[in-house]
Amino acid sequence: MSMKRFLNLPERVVDEVLGSFVQLAPVTLSAPGKGVRIVARADWKKDRVALISGGGAGHEPAHAGFVGEGMLTAAVSGELFASPSVDAVLAAIRHVTGSPGCLLIVKNYTGDRLNFGLAAERARAEGLNVGVVIVGDDVALEKSVKPRGIAGTVLVHKYAGWMAAKGLGLDEILTRITAFAELPMTLGLALSGCDVPGRAAETGGHGPELGLGIHNEPGAQEVNPASAREAMQLVLTPLLAEAVRRDPAPETRYVAFLNNLGGCSTQEMGVLAHDLLDIAGVERLALMVAPSSLMTSLNMPGFSVTLLPAQSDFVEALSSPTNAPAWPGVLTLHKTQYFEPAVDYLDKGKPDVSSGASVEQNPSVVAAISRITEVLISSKEELDSLDMKVGDGDAGTTIAAGSQTVRLRLQAGTLHTADPSQLCSEIGSALSLVMGGSGGVLLSIFFTATGTSLGNGVAWPDALADGIKRMQDYGGASVGDRTMLDALIPAVQALQHQGLAEAAHAARSGADSTAGMKKAHAGRSAYVPESALTGVVDPGAEAVARAFAAMVATS
Amino acid sequence: MSMKRFLNLPERVVDEVLGSFVQLAPVTLSAPGKGVRIVARADWKKDRVALISGGGAGHEPAHAGFVGEGMLTAAVSGELFASPSVDAVLAAIRHVTGSPGCLLIVKNYTGDRLNFGLAAERARAEGLNVGVVIVGDDVALEKSVKPRGIAGTVLVHKYAGWMAAKGLGLDEILTRITAFAELPMTLGLALSGCDVPGRAAETGGHGPELGLGIHNEPGAQEVNPASAREAMQLVLTPLLAEAVRRDPAPETRYVAFLNNLGGCSTQEMGVLAHDLLDIAGVERLALMVAPSSLMTSLNMPGFSVTLLPAQSDFVEALSSPTNAPAWPGVLTLHKTQYFEPAVDYLDKGKPDVSSGASVEQNPSVVAAISRITEVLISSKEELDSLDMKVGDGDAGTTIAAGSQTVRLRLQAGTLHTADPSQLCSEIGSALSLVMGGSGGVLLSIFFTATGTSLGNGVAWPDALADGIKRMQDYGGASVGDRTMLDALIPAVQALQHQGLAEAAHAARSGADSTAGMKKAHAGRSAYVPESALTGVVDPGAEAVARAFAAMVATS
Repeated sequence: MSMKRFLNLPERVVDEVLGSFVQLAPVTLSAPGKGVRIVARADWKKDRVALISGGGAGHEPAHAGFVGEGMLTAAVSGELFASPSVDAVLAAIRHVTGSPGCLLIVKNYTGDRLNFGLAAERARAEGLNVGVVIVGDDVALEKSVKPRGIAGTVLVHKYAGWMAAKGLGLDEILTRITAFAELPMTLGLALSGCDVPGRAAETGGHGPELGLGIHNEPGAQEVNPASAREAMQLVLTPLLAEAVRRDPAPETRYVAFLNNLGGCSTQEMGVLAHDLLDIAGVERLALMVAPSSLMTSLNMPGFSVTLLPAQSDFVEALSSPTNAPAWPGVLTLHKTQYFEPAVDYLDKGKPDVSSGASVEQNPSVVAAISRITEVLISSKEELDSLDMKVGDGDAGTTIAAGSQTVRLRLQAGTLHTADPSQLCSEIGSALSLVMGGSGGVLLSIFFTATGTSLGNGVAWPDALADGIKRMQDYGGASVGDRTMLDALIPAVQALQHQGLAEAAHAARSGADSTAGMKKAHAGRSAYVPESALTGVVDPGAEAVARAFAAMVATS
Repeated sequence: MSMKRFLNLPERVVDEVLGSFVQLAPVTLSAPGKGVRIVARADWKKDRVALISGGGAGHEPAHAGFVGEGMLTAAVSGELFASPSVDAVLAAIRHVTGSPGCLLIVKNYTGDRLNFGLAAERARAEGLNVGVVIVGDDVALEKSVKPRGIAGTVLVHKYAGWMAAKGLGLDEILTRITAFAELPMTLGLALSGCDVPGRAAETGGHGPELGLGIHNEPGAQEVNPASAREAMQLVLTPLLAEAVRRDPAPETRYVAFLNNLGGCSTQEMGVLAHDLLDIAGVERLALMVAPSSLMTSLNMPGFSVTLLPAQSDFVEALSSPTNAPAWPGVLTLHKTQYFEPAVDYLDKGKPDVSSGASVEQNPSVVAAISRITEVLISSKEELDSLDMKVGDGDAGTTIAAGSQTVRLRLQAGTLHTADPSQLCSEIGSALSLVMGGSGGVLLSIFFTATGTSLGNGVAWPDALADGIKRMQDYGGASVGDRTMLDALIPAVQALQHQGLAEAAHAARSGADSTAGMKKAHAGRSAYVPESALTGVVDPGAEAVARAFAAMVATS
């Protein structure tokens, strides 16, 4: 049974995760061996209200990832899913609190309330000015039960961080954040519970649940969505109903935050975001926190959606800068803007040989193309037969199909045989239409690139060499790789320095030489055993040799 | 069998994911129904070199998430794990290319090379100025095979985007990016393959592999790491060896990028980052791209590490701003800075009653505390017996333990009985040391907060009322919830308006009234059936009534 997750010792998870955070952010960590885990801003001057949050571990990047200018001053971490001690919270308060005071942002769980609460009371007894705000944004459970603090807490961090950075006093911050903390509404859905390192699998008891807690606490309702959209609908229906219950004004717009509970891929998050925008409606949303993993439950395959009324100062606060490494920023929404792509459908449709006006022709070029295509079409069975030994057996059929397309256009008089550059481009297009596979694309690249060079005033032989170079750039094969290049490269070299007859001769020699080549590094024969190759000429090289021979015959 | 992933129809995944991207970024999307998928900057003026990348889908946020000022101008997406068509790439080139020209950034896969290549050739035939760079950063496979393009491609996007934003010309960009593209070295390790929507499970054939491809292509080597650290070592050993092979200078420092292949939780990424920093050494790394999912393989449980020599212009380029939504930014590294936390170890050690000098005493307070603690200690069995009916049966034991601690300190003469404020604070500390559970923390909060108010000059009765308020703030219970508050609140109210005798009377009435309370919303009895509660007095309230009675007896 191989490892399923990238973890070391279960009891080391929290320290290792925090250890990586603190090496990648301008923060300090409480010295090890003290029984507490506090991450605090390294640049903190105690000249503003300090903001502290924290709680059990297993929700990373919450809360250490939110320590930075414009968000938290310090974060206190407990063990996995266990509140930090009073000691730890008190030590954090002592470390960061100056005369402007300190605000504790606490998720509404009994352990966190009590431990942060007692720490606050003890700090007050020491003369420190401490405020506490408790966040309960979960709308999953009945109203009679105190709502739990989940992903909406991160928005509280950001709003408080914005106020503190502006230099507001503790009293004003406390008043405003207490009101703010009542506003985020969050509901989650998970397909199963999470796996807690060091504990026996705990997911057995949980199938898909609406409102499954971020510590595997039972959810509000067992559900069985059949799609992402249905899951999103299950979350948004009560969430939007609660939003309307609180504020029936139809023009109210919201900040939305799609949180990954830990186990969703980027593609799932994209699909969920799509469904969220589609169901809620872009016009109803003023801003989105970038979909991301902010308040996780280890590897829980689930998500939550938080809605917050988009009051203008909230939007300003959430959009403000912070150097907290885990804050993902906000995104503005807009209806999809489309543009009309200029598509040729080269790869799709069949060639319409009857289309296009007939154009001026060069009789000798017409004769050459006619002869070459005729030869290649009639070579179909022989080339297929070679390819059956060294490839997938359709080289002849494919080459014949390409030749036939060119021939039909030639006969319709639509090929620009009098304009070499355009002719090559047209042949390139025609071949890519009918020749499937890499070979067709490579020949199309060859003719298209040759045409471009011709259009730039390059002479025929050098233009062909340019075409070969492009084939090699994109295809990666060289001489000796058992491809058409073994005939084409020597042929074009001969054409550059000698003449057509020598080129045809070189093509033939090159093609024949492929029969002796053992291992292919590219092209059709790369995956064929060496023993099967011996003595067999590469069909692509053979086709090139026959084409050059046909050219000589008509010249 | 319930749903395992948040997806809708498999054939809709790509369009839905792109659909969410384009509503959350200042980009435009090619009109639907055209058979192509192009995401392009909406604000693009064609006044700089355009940058286009793309490839098969399933690697999101690559590449659409990198479209933005300072990174890509456009991204072309194929189907899941299938290259986009020549048509699509060509339409993208046409859409964004102005006179400064265009650069295609292509991952080294045959399909991508050929399709982007032919599109480039066709665009050149149309007179557009197009450059192509091919990225092959994977060092997993033997050198004879062309390395695949994986996560390092994103660094190429960023470097090219920086150059293009600066207004450099295509020739210079092409020269520099071609050299740059040779430099990133990437190696991945996955614990299994990914699940491709719409295809039968494909993970069966893959256990943990080093260099498993981002399309489930077989890796270089089957491995069996037993921990995250071992997995990271398997990746870093060949990667660092390759880095040294290329550049043996010991002072060379690197940019590191830890990429989530899709299926790792934030905690796993934290652990892996920790191991990466530990094994490679912070001093060897100049910068880290924030660990994140940038080049994914759907939900593959794996990661890759990319190393890039930290040349100064690379660092500048990677650190430069972009509004591409998926670029996670870079993080500077430093050795962990520690601070010494001021920890009391309130929650940990046992009380050391012998410590501390004896202090001035107030005999009447000493007498009262002595009598109260004596009563509560002797009530242990009765209170436990009540708690067995409505809670977990240890209320008496816990209260007796707290009382005993206070009593021992009283007898040692270390309690400040002559200083009411400090006395309350000391009782609060003592109780939190020995009374486990919520009750001890709440009583500690009560005494600590009362002490703070006394210290602020508030009179006894009102200070006690402040303590009650704090208990309620953090504990959440009210009158009627079957807790000690049912005795304490009326007692303190009587104390505020009448006297101690009336307070004791009110406490007794309040305690007795709990026997008639049905449903508890908070506290010990919240999870006990109503039928079990009838006629039973809450042990916490009973203890309060007995304490007040004891106070009256000594006053």
